[in-house]
Amino acid sequence: MSRRAVGIDLGGTAIKAGAVNPAGDVLARTEVASGVADGAEAVCERIAACARELGATHGLGIGVPGLVDRTRGLVTKSPNLAPMEGYPLRDELARRLGLAPQAVHLENDANVAALGEHWLGGARGERHALVVTLGTGIGGGLILDGALFVGEGGLAAEVGHTTVDPRGPRCGCGNRGCLEALASATAASRRAAAAGLTADLKALTAAARAAAGPERELLHEVGRDLGRGLAQALTLLDLRCYLIGGGFGAAFDVLEPAIREGLLERSYGRAPEELRLRPATLGADAGWIGAARLAIGDASE
Amino acid sequence: MSRRAVGIDLGGTAIKAGAVNPAGDVLARTEVASGVADGAEAVCERIAACARELGATHGLGIGVPGLVDRTRGLVTKSPNLAPMEGYPLRDELARRLGLAPQAVHLENDANVAALGEHWLGGARGERHALVVTLGTGIGGGLILDGALFVGEGGLAAEVGHTTVDPRGPRCGCGNRGCLEALASATAASRRAAAAGLTADLKALTAAARAAAGPERELLHEVGRDLGRGLAQALTLLDLRCYLIGGGFGAAFDVLEPAIREGLLERSYGRAPEELRLRPATLGADAGWIGAARLAIGDASE
Repeated sequence: MSRRAVGIDLGGTAIKAGAVNPAGDVLARTEVASGVADGAEAVCERIAACARELGATHGLGIGVPGLVDRTRGLVTKSPNLAPMEGYPLRDELARRLGLAPQAVHLENDANVAALGEHWLGGARGERHALVVTLGTGIGGGLILDGALFVGEGGLAAEVGHTTVDPRGPRCGCGNRGCLEALASATAASRRAAAAGLTADLKALTAAARAAAGPERELLHEVGRDLGRGLAQALTLLDLRCYLIGGGFGAAFDVLEPAIREGLLERSYGRAPEELRLRPATLGADAGWIGAARLAIGDASE
Repeated sequence: MSRRAVGIDLGGTAIKAGAVNPAGDVLARTEVASGVADGAEAVCERIAACARELGATHGLGIGVPGLVDRTRGLVTKSPNLAPMEGYPLRDELARRLGLAPQAVHLENDANVAALGEHWLGGARGERHALVVTLGTGIGGGLILDGALFVGEGGLAAEVGHTTVDPRGPRCGCGNRGCLEALASATAASRRAAAAGLTADLKALTAAARAAAGPERELLHEVGRDLGRGLAQALTLLDLRCYLIGGGFGAAFDVLEPAIREGLLERSYGRAPEELRLRPATLGADAGWIGAARLAIGDASE
């Protein structure tokens, strides 16, 4: 029987899932609506149904947008999955699927995306890497010494809340000038509108790509702020590999020179060619692939 | 025969050295002038003499203030040890002491101080910790998963060059508002003088300790900036344990509430009691003890 692990990317609107073997071959995939409004039990049953369909015989990993308690196997805080907060997701899934609780892994979505990109995507072969997800907010996942680093409380790589400018715009976290308040999709859109440009990032990016002008200048400023935020990882970890993903990551080609400029401003003597700045390559699959990677440990043992 | 490793803290003015066994018992110690002006050969011979006196039968570690090339075993850049730059220190010491080159370890001084504090000092038992050295500049050493983390290029934990305020005072590295430009001993002294207070940090600290007043307010500002800089490690690594050492670390009792305040400003929901902010405990011995720790791997194998 072929060994396989299943990964689930549980989002506020969709459950994206797939099965892979330890060699990294994608064996199957599926997607259903999360239906969060139906409550935790219903969502759990939908995840279980996906896992059965995909054949999670050896393990299951789940990425969720929010804070997870890895010891208890549940979501502690998630604005987009509020009904799941406190629900014993790991144990319920293990019971329904006939798996040991230790074979079911819960992790933050930015962290599983980093694992996915490191296993089968743009960070493959890197010993250390930061995978940045540019969306409504800015998420991050940190690979150190080839493994996911979550830190003492499991909250590492909150790169969106690195302070770039203590006098900058107010962030949702209460501070000023967090990276997220300057360079997320939301922030870029707001900055564009404030400059009298279109707040539609696709249109803004297309205009910036097409010709020099205020759109390109604005995205240059946003990209430079992003680079300045990432530079904190360069300083603290001597980190050289940065992957940019997420919806706004589609503007990577336009942002890249400015991100590099921001990083190099604080590179403290490191040579530009030592910085590896790349787009994420797995797109919306990074999450479930990384979640499956969490469970591969079980499958390959 | 008792197994022992020797650690050397090679500074611009003194060579501090000692011997420890794998259990962490200090067996002997010594100190001589570095005499850097006499040239690399003379300094190397002085280190070798210390090592012979202390009995470096199983290994030798050396901490140096500057950049080291661990592969080639030499100092690449060190303003305070300029004659040592490029000198094949590891191989020369190995030859003189009859040791294998792999038994001689070179490391940055802030990194060995962190190793020392983690092994026998204030960070004992911590899985992750940042050891900060407050002196002319601000150095750092990072312990992750119980081991020294130096990063891809070996320059990790350059916490002195974390940006606290992009509009802040100019730093020696060329940027503005680096932590070092705001909260090193040099910066504190300069800030005190600019405020019309004594630039003597011992007198300033004593005055701040004795009574409320402008000295205490100034050191509060300095400490808060330090906390804000360290907060970048909290955000990026979810790091909860911070040790403050170095000469200006003697003001820890006065700085502590402000450092904590700066950290908590950006703690993003973490509880204050989860932050462990402590003075370094090994003082000037941290360096050579940590350097010996580098060599203990050899002794305990």
